[in-house]
Amino acid sequence: MLQRDYPDQICSIARSLEVIGERWTLLILRDAILGAERFEEFQETLGIASNVLTSRLKLMCDEGVLERLPDEQRPGRPKYVLTEKGRELGPALIMLMKWGDRHYPTSGGPPRLTLHAGCGGDIGADLCCKRCGQSVGPGELELPLGPGITGSTRGGSAQAPKRT
Amino acid sequence: MLQRDYPDQICSIARSLEVIGERWTLLILRDAILGAERFEEFQETLGIASNVLTSRLKLMCDEGVLERLPDEQRPGRPKYVLTEKGRELGPALIMLMKWGDRHYPTSGGPPRLTLHAGCGGDIGADLCCKRCGQSVGPGELELPLGPGITGSTRGGSAQAPKRT
Repeated sequence: MLQRDYPDQICSIARSLEVIGERWTLLILRDAILGAERFEEFQETLGIASNVLTSRLKLMCDEGVLERLPDEQRPGRPKYVLTEKGRELGPALIMLMKWGDRHYPTSGGPPRLTLHAGCGGDIGADLCCKRCGQSVGPGELELPLGPGITGSTRGGSAQAPKRT
Repeated sequence: MLQRDYPDQICSIARSLEVIGERWTLLILRDAILGAERFEEFQETLGIASNVLTSRLKLMCDEGVLERLPDEQRPGRPKYVLTEKGRELGPALIMLMKWGDRHYPTSGGPPRLTLHAGCGGDIGADLCCKRCGQSVGPGELELPLGPGITGSTRGGSAQAPKRT
């Protein structure tokens, strides 16, 4: 965990924030949800110092939010893959994304679309699909680049949209 | 906003975090959702330094997450009330709370229950009511003290449960 800033807080939010409350950690989590797996991918989209990224990835692996696995395409080098525990944070992050879209809009539209995988419907602020009405959980999200990100891929992995 | 740590990040999550990404800010937001309104109430549950609390409340008022209103019961003194924009962050915070409950459980059970206001059903990880099946939005949450908080009211307002 990060330093325990709130040792006497009996609160699940405070405990969650001790793990993922540091802002870089949340942005690393975002990139993992968007499909980033390699150290260089996180570094490129975040512009984060190597030592900071190393320590954050270690924290997230120690806490079981990410898993360090061998990268078959690059023998001897690791990749960082979301665990189920990490994937479970996706919906909360999507809610934060949609709050930002509403209150701090980018000219041109949202940087990422939030679609119901398979169905293709737009996901609303309540995380329900506007097309089929289903509540959309981790593993059912598609986040393709949106109109607000044209001309740049910063702020998100440049990879193809990926289910989370 | 907080200092712009991510000026070249075209991302709604990064923009949201610039407003509410600092951990104290998220815990102040939590207390506001639980019903705290007065400076002293935030200070008591958070154990936060006055100058830090003052600057965080100012940020949250500047950003329209909280509103500074006169406290009718204490002429000349303010209270801090969630705006609609602030209330909209409730569901994301509840998701974070439930993630913490699952992965970092308190002995005895969750510190707060998450109930569907009016209906009384327990709210699931997908923010749907387990009793009536409805997706539960801001203003429909009740967060009474749970079994994990017996013997202490730290980490949350000691007030009566309040709808958010």
